[in-house]
Amino acid sequence: MARRASGRKANEAAMAPGSSGRSTVDIVDTGYLPSVLGYALRRAQLAVFKEFKARFDGIGIRPSQFSILTIIARNPGIKQTQLSEALFIKRANLVRLLDELELRDLIRRDASVHDRRSHSLILTAYGVDFVARMEEIHRQLEDHLAGLLGKEPKTALLKMLYQLIDSAPGVEDVVADYD
Amino acid sequence: MARRASGRKANEAAMAPGSSGRSTVDIVDTGYLPSVLGYALRRAQLAVFKEFKARFDGIGIRPSQFSILTIIARNPGIKQTQLSEALFIKRANLVRLLDELELRDLIRRDASVHDRRSHSLILTAYGVDFVARMEEIHRQLEDHLAGLLGKEPKTALLKMLYQLIDSAPGVEDVVADYD
Repeated sequence: MARRASGRKANEAAMAPGSSGRSTVDIVDTGYLPSVLGYALRRAQLAVFKEFKARFDGIGIRPSQFSILTIIARNPGIKQTQLSEALFIKRANLVRLLDELELRDLIRRDASVHDRRSHSLILTAYGVDFVARMEEIHRQLEDHLAGLLGKEPKTALLKMLYQLIDSAPGVEDVVADYD
Repeated sequence: MARRASGRKANEAAMAPGSSGRSTVDIVDTGYLPSVLGYALRRAQLAVFKEFKARFDGIGIRPSQFSILTIIARNPGIKQTQLSEALFIKRANLVRLLDELELRDLIRRDASVHDRRSHSLILTAYGVDFVARMEEIHRQLEDHLAGLLGKEPKTALLKMLYQLIDSAPGVEDVVADYD
């Protein structure tokens, strides 16, 4: 009986008349959860990352590595600190990710001419070819995702996402659990 | 010189004429990265979770725990398996999360009347009051987020997010790095 009473109170608290109050649940009532923005954002992000993974597993690239390689390709000589700030990746996480890319001979760290303590990052010749292949796979992925939404809605979606992003400028690390 | 050559090739590969080819980078060119859907989704999700954390730290609730408590409140007697499926949380992760909520006296696990091997979940009396407070904080959070977007856009945003979510029905675990 205590259980049922708790159940009823819980439903009152949530102002949800949906539950039957029985001690078994046949159909789960998810209530307002589907309209919780953080929940939908998380599930959509995971859905997109899943599609990313399916397409990029063949070349062994995770989302964070993708971002890092495109930025180094466009900014040869970029310093680790600059990359860390541009991508909102904490320094410690970035070092680990760069180690992996260097081991795979995709990038090289050079001591900076201007500041010997800091490293400049460039693609290797192999890295240049690799990034070209990677960006082709990515173009197909973005086309696929835009197709799910329709072309105009993708622009509208991005606009709304950046309204949320700009509201919390202090987010520092997208990689803590980015992969 | 090798560095500069690599840099030039990288830019050709990415078809990006933006880089100066110097060995230092003054302003980082993020190229098309801001329009990469997965990247924007991840950053928006982190921005929203950051706001969540700021508002829920006082009562010690993380997003995954929030979802679990609202579902148990609406479905007294729900089994762990059902909760796991409804929330896309892997069983092992769910067990850990439920342990924590039980230790805090927010929920109770009862052996099921119908299946003694499986546990039914209910809120404790304290949990019922707690969920009421939690949901009030949450209503304020959602109002704040809707305010960032405007009311209509939130509905439009959710619609687009679910188009992405429904395209990848196999995502199993939102908690692996949900918190």
